[in-house]
Amino acid sequence: MLSAKDIKRLRALGQKKFRDEEGAFVVEGEKLVREAKESGFRIRECYRMADIGEAAMERISQLSSPSPVLAVVEKPSAWDEMKVDAPEAGLYIALDGIRDPGNLGTILRCADWFGVSGVFASADTVEISNPKVVQATMGAIFRVKFARADIPSLCRATRAAGGIVYGTFMDGTNIYKEGLRTGADGPVIIVIGNEANGISAATAAEVSARISIPAYGNSGMESLNAAVATAITLSEFRRRCQGNE
Amino acid sequence: MLSAKDIKRLRALGQKKFRDEEGAFVVEGEKLVREAKESGFRIRECYRMADIGEAAMERISQLSSPSPVLAVVEKPSAWDEMKVDAPEAGLYIALDGIRDPGNLGTILRCADWFGVSGVFASADTVEISNPKVVQATMGAIFRVKFARADIPSLCRATRAAGGIVYGTFMDGTNIYKEGLRTGADGPVIIVIGNEANGISAATAAEVSARISIPAYGNSGMESLNAAVATAITLSEFRRRCQGNE
Repeated sequence: MLSAKDIKRLRALGQKKFRDEEGAFVVEGEKLVREAKESGFRIRECYRMADIGEAAMERISQLSSPSPVLAVVEKPSAWDEMKVDAPEAGLYIALDGIRDPGNLGTILRCADWFGVSGVFASADTVEISNPKVVQATMGAIFRVKFARADIPSLCRATRAAGGIVYGTFMDGTNIYKEGLRTGADGPVIIVIGNEANGISAATAAEVSARISIPAYGNSGMESLNAAVATAITLSEFRRRCQGNE
Repeated sequence: MLSAKDIKRLRALGQKKFRDEEGAFVVEGEKLVREAKESGFRIRECYRMADIGEAAMERISQLSSPSPVLAVVEKPSAWDEMKVDAPEAGLYIALDGIRDPGNLGTILRCADWFGVSGVFASADTVEISNPKVVQATMGAIFRVKFARADIPSLCRATRAAGGIVYGTFMDGTNIYKEGLRTGADGPVIIVIGNEANGISAATAAEVSARISIPAYGNSGMESLNAAVATAITLSEFRRRCQGNE
């Protein structure tokens, strides 16, 4: 049986403040909990509806319809590291103010699909252990390397180390025609901006090449969704890699 | 002032049954309402928070935080047409059981961005005038041609008319390497399957070419989100078109 105190504590993990205090977050669903274990994440607590009952599960769940299993998983310390140095050779994503949990979840899922070496996120990007992010990643959260970063410093260091920083802008060069470097011989960072305002001025100043996904015909849309733009950009970078040319 | 009866009637438009009865749907927000007008949609009623007050607006809004303006817009009859014949030359999307309103909204937004000639949706695809779909399209709903279709019949007729039907599958050929036809000289349909189960057997039997977006490296993901897969697929088709090669 779960005590009222336990229920209160578990529910509180829906809030960032309590996740930070406990250094843990909530994972729901058979598949996600299994993937957390398989990826080497430490499971602190695990509750099954079969043991605690449906009513208790509904109270501790962050979902509209509770799953048969809910785990409290330890947050990796790497998630809270604040990177400022250039990463190793590889293809990286840097998120400069992504606010929507669904977008962050979808971006992590795409990063996993396209074998990205790591995802960096600014301090004003939505927190990765937010329950909506965790569920939207479909398990990618346990496989993709993630860290916080001061994005302008990270970009500056990457360029100083001989790497390249691409930024997605409305007025960049046509991504289909741009000669893209794919990270095989040095670090390559793709910066994705905020949903409404795009890439910040401080980060834009550190970008080596501005790229755009061109609209076709007379589109009335002002922009693509940030997660969709990330997906298309990653697809185009990976198309250029060996095996896909 | 809005009567209690009006409020009840407007709130009911959140449900498909009442939208069907009234032949109308709800659009919220200055930008969306303006785009509905500009695209020639008929506005039956329009309410401004400045006129009816915040309390009334909160009661009639379908959103968690109500907009300054809400309009009741007439559903175009084309939205309920059931297409079975081949469309004209052009690039089309056929949705074979998309259930998530956010996914349909994102797909319409991408269809607009990439200048798709039309979007067809199976009877079991979420309804286009669902408030969550309308808001997620960011206005694309007023510009993209949309109709219901019996997808297997539509595909069969398209092939019979000399067109081609691509289907997105997990085990299709590498989309980056496939010679894609882009709709310049006949109808081309790209079929997108259901989020969980993919393309139905009846539709799969009518597909001319099975394509896949290859994962890169050792991805643990089973699939991409349906809207993301649509976006990447459309990007790859448009990359092959004149001006992007």
